[in-house]
Amino acid sequence: MNPTTDADNRLDRAFMALADPVRRAIVARLSRGPATVNELAEPFAISKQAVSKHIQVLELAGLIGRSKDAQRRPAHLVPEALEQLTAWIDTYRLTTESSFRRLDAVLAGMTEVTTPQKRKEEK
Amino acid sequence: MNPTTDADNRLDRAFMALADPVRRAIVARLSRGPATVNELAEPFAISKQAVSKHIQVLELAGLIGRSKDAQRRPAHLVPEALEQLTAWIDTYRLTTESSFRRLDAVLAGMTEVTTPQKRKEEK
Repeated sequence: MNPTTDADNRLDRAFMALADPVRRAIVARLSRGPATVNELAEPFAISKQAVSKHIQVLELAGLIGRSKDAQRRPAHLVPEALEQLTAWIDTYRLTTESSFRRLDAVLAGMTEVTTPQKRKEEK
Repeated sequence: MNPTTDADNRLDRAFMALADPVRRAIVARLSRGPATVNELAEPFAISKQAVSKHIQVLELAGLIGRSKDAQRRPAHLVPEALEQLTAWIDTYRLTTESSFRRLDAVLAGMTEVTTPQKRKEEK
Protein backbone atom coordinates (compact mmCIF):
# COMPACT_ATOMS: atom_id res chain seq x y z
CA MET A 1 0.00 0.00 0.00
CA ASN A 2 1.03 3.60 -0.55
CA PRO A 3 2.22 5.57 2.47
CA THR A 4 -0.24 8.05 4.01
CA THR A 5 -0.75 11.11 1.80
CA ASP A 6 -1.83 14.70 2.52
CA ALA A 7 -5.23 13.87 1.04
CA ASP A 8 -5.50 10.96 3.50
CA ASN A 9 -4.64 13.25 6.41
CA ARG A 10 -7.26 15.78 5.30
CA LEU A 11 -9.94 13.06 5.05
CA ASP A 12 -8.88 11.62 8.45
CA ARG A 13 -9.25 15.04 10.09
CA ALA A 14 -12.53 15.87 8.34
CA PHE A 15 -14.29 12.56 9.10
CA MET A 16 -12.95 12.62 12.68
CA ALA A 17 -14.27 16.18 13.08
CA LEU A 18 -17.78 15.00 12.13
CA ALA A 19 -17.65 12.02 14.53
CA ASP A 20 -18.96 14.12 17.44
CA PRO A 21 -22.54 15.30 18.14
CA VAL A 22 -21.49 18.76 19.41
CA ARG A 23 -19.34 19.40 16.35
CA ARG A 24 -22.16 18.21 14.07
CA ALA A 25 -24.54 20.60 15.88
CA ILE A 26 -22.04 23.43 15.27
CA VAL A 27 -21.96 22.51 11.55
CA ALA A 28 -25.78 22.50 11.50
CA ARG A 29 -25.90 25.94 13.18
CA LEU A 30 -23.26 27.42 10.84
CA SER A 31 -25.14 26.17 7.77
CA ARG A 32 -27.70 28.90 8.58
CA GLY A 33 -25.01 31.60 8.64
CA PRO A 34 -21.76 32.69 10.34
CA ALA A 35 -21.66 32.85 14.17
CA THR A 36 -19.23 33.84 16.92
CA VAL A 37 -17.92 31.45 19.59
CA ASN A 38 -20.36 33.01 22.10
CA GLU A 39 -23.31 32.48 19.78
CA LEU A 40 -22.20 28.91 19.04
CA ALA A 41 -21.67 28.10 22.75
CA GLU A 42 -25.11 29.39 23.83
CA PRO A 43 -27.25 26.25 23.19
CA PHE A 44 -24.74 23.84 24.77
CA ALA A 45 -24.55 22.75 28.40
CA ILE A 46 -20.74 22.71 28.13
CA SER A 47 -18.14 25.42 28.79
CA LYS A 48 -17.24 28.07 26.22
CA GLN A 49 -13.69 26.65 26.37
CA ALA A 50 -14.96 23.20 25.34
CA VAL A 51 -16.92 24.75 22.45
CA SER A 52 -13.81 26.70 21.40
CA LYS A 53 -11.87 23.44 21.26
CA HIS A 54 -14.57 21.82 19.07
CA ILE A 55 -14.45 24.85 16.76
CA GLN A 56 -10.67 24.47 16.53
CA VAL A 57 -11.03 20.80 15.53
CA LEU A 58 -13.49 21.78 12.76
CA GLU A 59 -11.14 24.60 11.66
CA LEU A 60 -8.05 22.33 11.53
CA ALA A 61 -10.14 19.88 9.48
CA GLY A 62 -10.85 22.69 6.99
CA LEU A 63 -14.62 22.36 7.49
CA ILE A 64 -15.00 25.88 8.94
CA GLY A 65 -13.15 29.15 8.49
CA ARG A 66 -12.84 32.16 10.79
CA SER A 67 -13.13 35.73 9.55
CA LYS A 68 -10.22 38.13 10.11
CA ASP A 69 -12.45 40.43 12.24
CA ALA A 70 -10.13 40.37 15.29
CA GLN A 71 -12.83 41.21 17.86
CA ARG A 72 -15.52 38.65 17.05
CA ARG A 73 -13.88 36.27 14.55
CA PRO A 74 -17.19 34.74 13.44
CA ALA A 75 -16.93 31.18 12.07
CA HIS A 76 -18.43 30.08 8.76
CA LEU A 77 -18.81 26.72 7.04
CA VAL A 78 -16.67 25.80 4.03
CA PRO A 79 -19.18 24.02 1.75
CA GLU A 80 -16.41 22.92 -0.67
CA ALA A 81 -14.81 20.88 2.15
CA LEU A 82 -18.15 19.19 2.89
CA GLU A 83 -18.54 18.49 -0.82
CA GLN A 84 -15.16 16.72 -0.91
CA LEU A 85 -16.41 14.33 1.77
CA THR A 86 -19.64 13.50 -0.04
CA ALA A 87 -17.64 13.08 -3.27
CA TRP A 88 -15.37 10.56 -1.55
CA ILE A 89 -18.30 8.57 -0.09
CA ASP A 90 -20.37 8.74 -3.29
CA THR A 91 -17.53 7.37 -5.44
CA TYR A 92 -17.61 4.10 -3.51
CA ARG A 93 -21.36 4.06 -2.89
CA LEU A 94 -22.06 4.38 -6.62
CA THR A 95 -19.42 1.77 -7.52
CA THR A 96 -21.06 -0.61 -5.02
CA GLU A 97 -24.51 0.00 -6.41
CA SER A 98 -23.34 -0.55 -9.98
CA SER A 99 -21.52 -3.79 -9.02
CA PHE A 100 -24.76 -4.95 -7.29
CA ARG A 101 -26.61 -4.24 -10.54
CA ARG A 102 -24.00 -6.18 -12.55
CA LEU A 103 -24.33 -9.12 -10.12
CA ASP A 104 -28.13 -9.01 -10.52
CA ALA A 105 -27.69 -9.06 -14.30
CA VAL A 106 -25.27 -12.03 -14.09
CA LEU A 107 -27.68 -13.93 -11.82
CA ALA A 108 -30.58 -13.17 -14.16
CA GLY A 109 -28.42 -14.42 -17.08
CA MET A 110 -27.54 -17.63 -15.19
CA THR A 111 -31.23 -18.38 -14.59
CA GLU A 112 -31.92 -17.99 -18.32
CA VAL A 113 -29.03 -20.27 -19.27
CA THR A 114 -29.50 -22.97 -16.60
CA THR A 115 -33.24 -23.37 -16.99
CA PRO A 116 -33.20 -24.94 -20.52
CA GLN A 117 -30.10 -26.97 -19.53
CA LYS A 118 -32.01 -28.45 -16.60
CA ARG A 119 -34.94 -29.37 -18.84
CA LYS A 120 -32.60 -31.38 -21.11
CA GLU A 121 -31.20 -33.28 -18.13
CA GLU A 122 -34.69 -34.07 -16.92
CA LYS A 123 -35.62 -35.68 -20.22
CA MET B 1 -29.33 20.75 23.78
CA ASN B 2 -30.92 17.31 23.43
CA PRO B 3 -29.09 14.36 24.99
CA THR B 4 -27.19 12.06 22.64
CA THR B 5 -29.54 9.93 20.54
CA ASP B 6 -29.15 6.56 18.79
CA ALA B 7 -28.90 8.42 15.49
CA ASP B 8 -26.04 10.48 16.97
CA ASN B 9 -24.25 7.31 18.07
CA ARG B 10 -24.64 5.79 14.62
CA LEU B 11 -23.23 8.92 12.94
CA ASP B 12 -20.37 9.06 15.49
CA ARG B 13 -19.40 5.46 14.73
CA ALA B 14 -19.77 5.81 10.95
CA PHE B 15 -17.74 9.04 10.61
CA MET B 16 -15.12 7.68 13.03
CA ALA B 17 -14.90 4.48 10.95
CA LEU B 18 -14.08 6.53 7.84
CA ALA B 19 -11.41 8.59 9.67
CA ASP B 20 -8.69 6.06 8.90
CA PRO B 21 -6.82 5.44 5.62
CA VAL B 22 -6.77 1.62 5.97
CA ARG B 23 -10.53 1.51 6.64
CA ARG B 24 -11.16 3.83 3.67
CA ALA B 25 -9.02 1.52 1.49
CA ILE B 26 -11.14 -1.43 2.68
CA VAL B 27 -14.31 0.50 1.72
CA ALA B 28 -12.78 1.26 -1.69
CA ARG B 29 -11.90 -2.44 -2.23
CA LEU B 30 -15.35 -3.66 -1.12
CA SER B 31 -17.07 -1.22 -3.48
CA ARG B 32 -15.84 -3.52 -6.29
CA GLY B 33 -17.41 -6.60 -4.65
CA PRO B 34 -17.43 -8.74 -1.49
CA ALA B 35 -14.10 -10.01 -0.12
CA THR B 36 -12.83 -12.22 2.71
CA VAL B 37 -10.53 -11.02 5.50
CA ASN B 38 -7.59 -12.74 3.75
CA GLU B 39 -8.35 -11.00 0.46
CA LEU B 40 -8.77 -7.65 2.23
CA ALA B 41 -5.53 -8.07 4.23
CA GLU B 42 -3.41 -8.94 1.19
CA PRO B 43 -2.45 -5.43 -0.04
CA PHE B 44 -1.64 -4.10 3.46
CA ALA B 45 1.72 -4.19 5.21
CA ILE B 46 -0.08 -4.79 8.51
CA SER B 47 -1.10 -8.03 10.26
CA LYS B 48 -4.28 -9.92 9.40
CA GLN B 49 -5.33 -9.32 13.03
CA ALA B 50 -5.05 -5.54 12.55
CA VAL B 51 -7.10 -5.76 9.34
CA SER B 52 -9.72 -7.90 11.17
CA LYS B 53 -10.00 -5.15 13.80
CA HIS B 54 -10.53 -2.49 11.11
CA ILE B 55 -13.22 -4.69 9.53
CA GLN B 56 -14.90 -4.98 12.93
CA VAL B 57 -14.94 -1.17 13.34
CA LEU B 58 -16.58 -0.82 9.90
CA GLU B 59 -19.07 -3.59 10.79
CA LEU B 60 -20.03 -2.03 14.16
CA ALA B 61 -20.52 1.28 12.30
CA GLY B 62 -22.98 -0.47 9.97
CA LEU B 63 -20.92 0.39 6.89
CA ILE B 64 -20.15 -3.23 6.03
CA GLY B 65 -21.96 -6.53 6.57
CA ARG B 66 -20.60 -10.10 6.77
CA SER B 67 -22.26 -13.03 5.04
CA LYS B 68 -23.38 -16.01 7.15
CA ASP B 69 -21.05 -18.34 5.20
CA ALA B 70 -19.26 -19.64 8.34
CA GLN B 71 -16.02 -20.62 6.59
CA ARG B 72 -15.17 -17.49 4.64
CA ARG B 73 -17.62 -14.84 5.96
CA PRO B 74 -16.95 -12.43 3.07
CA ALA B 75 -17.59 -8.76 3.87
CA HIS B 76 -19.71 -6.47 1.68
CA LEU B 77 -20.42 -2.74 1.73
CA VAL B 78 -23.83 -1.43 2.85
CA PRO B 79 -24.49 1.38 0.34
CA GLU B 80 -27.56 2.58 2.30
CA ALA B 81 -25.33 3.39 5.30
CA LEU B 82 -22.96 5.39 3.07
CA GLU B 83 -25.96 7.20 1.63
CA GLN B 84 -27.10 8.24 5.13
CA LEU B 85 -23.73 9.93 5.65
CA THR B 86 -23.85 11.87 2.39
CA ALA B 87 -27.46 12.81 3.17
CA TRP B 88 -26.38 14.24 6.54
CA ILE B 89 -23.50 16.23 5.02
CA ASP B 90 -25.52 17.40 2.00
CA THR B 91 -28.33 18.76 4.19
CA TYR B 92 -25.95 21.29 5.73
CA ARG B 93 -23.85 21.86 2.62
CA LEU B 94 -26.94 22.78 0.60
CA THR B 95 -28.33 24.99 3.41
CA THR B 96 -24.96 26.80 3.52
CA GLU B 97 -24.91 27.29 -0.23
CA SER B 98 -28.48 28.61 -0.27
CA SER B 99 -27.73 31.02 2.61
CA PHE B 100 -24.66 32.23 0.67
CA ARG B 101 -26.93 32.82 -2.34
CA ARG B 102 -29.43 34.72 -0.15
CA LEU B 103 -26.58 36.86 1.21
CA ASP B 104 -25.40 37.56 -2.34
CA ALA B 105 -28.97 38.56 -3.27
CA VAL B 106 -29.21 40.86 -0.22
CA LEU B 107 -25.86 42.48 -1.06
CA ALA B 108 -26.92 42.89 -4.71
CA GLY B 109 -30.20 44.45 -3.48
CA MET B 110 -28.30 46.83 -1.20
CA THR B 111 -26.17 48.00 -4.12
CA GLU B 112 -29.30 48.65 -6.20
CA VAL B 113 -30.94 50.58 -3.37
CA THR B 114 -27.90 52.56 -2.24
CA THR B 115 -26.71 53.55 -5.69
CA PRO B 116 -29.65 55.86 -6.59
CA GLN B 117 -29.65 57.10 -2.97
CA LYS B 118 -26.01 58.07 -3.30
CA ARG B 119 -26.72 59.83 -6.57
CA LYS B 120 -29.37 61.99 -4.86
CA GLU B 121 -26.91 62.89 -2.07
CA GLU B 122 -24.29 63.81 -4.64
CA LYS B 123 -26.63 66.26 -6.38
